[in-house]
Amino acid sequence: MSISRKISESAVHRLSLYLRILEDLDREGRETVSSDEMSGRSATTAAQVRKDLSLFGSFGKRGLGYDVAELAERLRKILGLDRRWCVALVGAGRIGSALVEHGGFAERSYDVVAIFDSDASKVGERWGGLRVRDISEFVAVANEEGVEIVILAIPVEAVPSVMEYVEEAGVRGILNFAPTKLKVRAGVAVKDVNMVMELEALSFALSQEDAEG
Amino acid sequence: MSISRKISESAVHRLSLYLRILEDLDREGRETVSSDEMSGRSATTAAQVRKDLSLFGSFGKRGLGYDVAELAERLRKILGLDRRWCVALVGAGRIGSALVEHGGFAERSYDVVAIFDSDASKVGERWGGLRVRDISEFVAVANEEGVEIVILAIPVEAVPSVMEYVEEAGVRGILNFAPTKLKVRAGVAVKDVNMVMELEALSFALSQEDAEG
Repeated sequence: MSISRKISESAVHRLSLYLRILEDLDREGRETVSSDEMSGRSATTAAQVRKDLSLFGSFGKRGLGYDVAELAERLRKILGLDRRWCVALVGAGRIGSALVEHGGFAERSYDVVAIFDSDASKVGERWGGLRVRDISEFVAVANEEGVEIVILAIPVEAVPSVMEYVEEAGVRGILNFAPTKLKVRAGVAVKDVNMVMELEALSFALSQEDAEG
Repeated sequence: MSISRKISESAVHRLSLYLRILEDLDREGRETVSSDEMSGRSATTAAQVRKDLSLFGSFGKRGLGYDVAELAERLRKILGLDRRWCVALVGAGRIGSALVEHGGFAERSYDVVAIFDSDASKVGERWGGLRVRDISEFVAVANEEGVEIVILAIPVEAVPSVMEYVEEAGVRGILNFAPTKLKVRAGVAVKDVNMVMELEALSFALSQEDAEG
């Protein structure tokens, strides 16, 4: 069984968080870190840190802890950050604009190489160095630029037609902001981001607290 | 042990998804639904649907399935959607604006009652029916309006000072867009939304596929 099927979504999120902690430590000039300190900085337990990292064959040395630079390097590789990824944004609205301008994608490994919209009044606008293109150009541009990941920041009604292009272009990963479950073929990875559902997770937790009195 | 500690984050997300499916079915005039159909619409397995719902004592009837309206009602209650929640937005930037204008919060149970920023050029602007207020007014306004949930759409540097206000006001839930782990006292629920980390979960999955060849 592959690692990706063996570990949970929240474990992957913790790996991202550990990487950020290690990068902070590296900037502070630190060479080693204990699982205790990692847990303190990541609001989890030391046992959880050790368990998560052992999945990838990384073990701290008793009394020394983990090697900061080495572990960061390993996590970058596991998270696919040892290479660049070509990303296209579909939907040149507010969410899209917030993402592209403030997302900090390029500092990681994600290069937004194209932006698409179906709204004729937006097509042709310049966003940073990129011109917003008509969605009908998607397949041609995606193939030319080697787009592997798409950020879908479009309304639900637009999903079926856009997904036809996305499938045809052979896109492998989708970050989906449309509040609907995408149907994709096997091998395509999808991450849904739905703000209302995040709020529901909060009000779920608060309601449980209230019920416990 | 409480339900909130017994079930995983992804299970809570599935409950939100089931609720959306049930509401669609209700609009289509359907009175019952099988776990098979629920699983088909939610891209999960029928066994998973039955397991998730059994946590809340809801069981389909053999040959009939679940009662659509009754199950939707139960899920709304579990997710805290049987009441209104007062929400404040801190950070009147692009992310904040995208959320407030297109989030569909009010159609659920979330009323954005106040918006704050520390930037004098933004304070006083009108966003929909609300005037952007100075962050220094946070505690007074939050108490007056009964704010329970805060959306933090601010840069990392602003987190420590804003969190002092948030703690002082006794806010119980935080939807955090700042790319940092918040330190909160026990009983405060936090959901982190970090777009780069979502992309990392995608490139993790794609890298694993590549490694498997």
